[in-house]
Amino acid sequence: MKIAVDAMGGDYAPEQIVFGAVRAAKEYGCEIVLVGDEKKIVRVLAKEEGWQSLGISVLHASEVIEMGEHPVTAVRRKKDSSVVVATRLVKEGACDAVLSAGSTGGAVAAAQFILGRIAGADRPTIATPMPTPKGVTLLLDSGANVDSKPKHLVQGAIMGALYAEHVFGIKKPRVGLLNIGEEETKGNEQAQATYPLLKSMTTVNFCGNAEGRDIPKGNFDVVVCDGFVGNVVLKFAEGLAKTLVRLAKDAVKNGGILARLGAFLLLPALKKLGKTIDVSEYGGAPLLGVRGCCLIAHGSSNAKSIASAIRVAKDYVESDVLAHIKENLAREAALDDSGKCPAANGEEPAAEAVRS
Amino acid sequence: MKIAVDAMGGDYAPEQIVFGAVRAAKEYGCEIVLVGDEKKIVRVLAKEEGWQSLGISVLHASEVIEMGEHPVTAVRRKKDSSVVVATRLVKEGACDAVLSAGSTGGAVAAAQFILGRIAGADRPTIATPMPTPKGVTLLLDSGANVDSKPKHLVQGAIMGALYAEHVFGIKKPRVGLLNIGEEETKGNEQAQATYPLLKSMTTVNFCGNAEGRDIPKGNFDVVVCDGFVGNVVLKFAEGLAKTLVRLAKDAVKNGGILARLGAFLLLPALKKLGKTIDVSEYGGAPLLGVRGCCLIAHGSSNAKSIASAIRVAKDYVESDVLAHIKENLAREAALDDSGKCPAANGEEPAAEAVRS
Repeated sequence: MKIAVDAMGGDYAPEQIVFGAVRAAKEYGCEIVLVGDEKKIVRVLAKEEGWQSLGISVLHASEVIEMGEHPVTAVRRKKDSSVVVATRLVKEGACDAVLSAGSTGGAVAAAQFILGRIAGADRPTIATPMPTPKGVTLLLDSGANVDSKPKHLVQGAIMGALYAEHVFGIKKPRVGLLNIGEEETKGNEQAQATYPLLKSMTTVNFCGNAEGRDIPKGNFDVVVCDGFVGNVVLKFAEGLAKTLVRLAKDAVKNGGILARLGAFLLLPALKKLGKTIDVSEYGGAPLLGVRGCCLIAHGSSNAKSIASAIRVAKDYVESDVLAHIKENLAREAALDDSGKCPAANGEEPAAEAVRS
Repeated sequence: MKIAVDAMGGDYAPEQIVFGAVRAAKEYGCEIVLVGDEKKIVRVLAKEEGWQSLGISVLHASEVIEMGEHPVTAVRRKKDSSVVVATRLVKEGACDAVLSAGSTGGAVAAAQFILGRIAGADRPTIATPMPTPKGVTLLLDSGANVDSKPKHLVQGAIMGALYAEHVFGIKKPRVGLLNIGEEETKGNEQAQATYPLLKSMTTVNFCGNAEGRDIPKGNFDVVVCDGFVGNVVLKFAEGLAKTLVRLAKDAVKNGGILARLGAFLLLPALKKLGKTIDVSEYGGAPLLGVRGCCLIAHGSSNAKSIASAIRVAKDYVESDVLAHIKENLAREAALDDSGKCPAANGEEPAAEAVRS
């Protein structure tokens, strides 16, 4: 197992990315290729004793895609950028997965151009695991695409359900369509058109509409939505969590000596709670729909989050979910074309679908 | 000041609605007409000593619009439903505002049909105050309409800004467009088309795109979005808050004697914090764009939330913001038609705009 890590992407790159990689190499025993400015990476590695024996190597890349750049243009122009070079390693078979905490658009564009799309997946989708008291809810699309068509949401549902099943080990994951009410007739045009498509599927355990409140409550394993809504929800959750932590700290600080003592006594319990709902425990979000394992980590990832994301990449590769996704989408596409099961009418799946 | 209250709407109706009305009558000195099943209402009122001297009256209505009913059909058929009768009191000038914690769709439909829309407000919009550490952010539309056109979001921005200015007393409220990135070119078709319209306005202090995280952080006073996204965010916030409180309680319970002592010591500080972020402190959400004050309270409203909502209704009426909204939308509509200021070319605003 070899993972390509974009060492230059993220708010705390390369330092926290490199530290995270070392931590993951120690804990999960996977080989790692750190891609980026060699000098800078080696300088950080030098702080970690014995890194040479951990299966970590460095591959120089002279450019970096910055946050403000237009992703598609940047990926096309910066052929020697860390994320492009790292993604190429997967395409060429030198690595099993690629991870980046840099520009999400850059990572998505690189994966689309270099790895290519899986046949039947018209648009790649970011599947973000949201922590809940019952485990994790996979929210997709959480920002790769906007103005999605109903078929894109259906493809997302198929991929998300397979990911939840094979990577999280959830049998018959409960899939919900993010909407503003429980009834089938609720919602905007997109949701109204998507509902009957999902309802008619036999390969997905569709459990109806999910409302906003169902996500944190963990009432579904997979929630599909347009990338616009998913991204707003994701960033809202992030902002709310940060705001609450800040407010709680202020409350303790301004609450006098008794409040401080109280907080001290509560700390172990709160730490345990924090671990349950800490997004960094879940590391990266897979970009589903591309021909290779691509993981996207949060821009503010620290070493711990990067290590978690590398663990997720390892699980992703080992689960072989990619093969299941390719197979299912090809079957779905064939069904869509012929109205019948390909096995039943003796047809081969489309060439596009069996190429990789 | 006289407020019509739908006593039959809400999960805890009529009891909590009636108690809330009594509380508000005592605290804010406004007259209240409780509309609904007279027998049931009087039975609850009987538990409140001296309610007769508080300016509270009861108006019988024989029907109730249930949560599952189709709002438009229900409002048309159930002419004697509590929300329809209560809204009619505003139309006839017998009351200054109407409040309902029942079916949101029912309240919106009743307001649209009975009060009618303000000229220049093609779609009514629900403006929900979201608590932030800096005060309140008005999120609109939070569920009245989906698949809105850019002009609807612009109308929402005008109304939301005026509401924030006149009811919350914020000078030049910072208005943001909910989007998935800061740059002007970001977002779905709707957001991309709305941005330049908002940017060109001189009557609204447009401060650019607001991301999901900006809402809980309080970085804007008014955030405009499609009702689909707004409703998802609102319910997500609600679900997350409930989940966190439950998890924190469990953490204390399972944390042993020290954690319990800690929680006891922290209680006063946490109560103060809870007050800051408690949605029930802010009561109702105004339905903007209709010809009258209509307030929508949460379905799970208790007496405290209902009393808060009545206080909001009082502030709403006293601020005379409705007149400002009518005037501004008429001016905007005239500008839109002629490309010039109506005063400048001597034209009267459209008849529709001056009717009420």
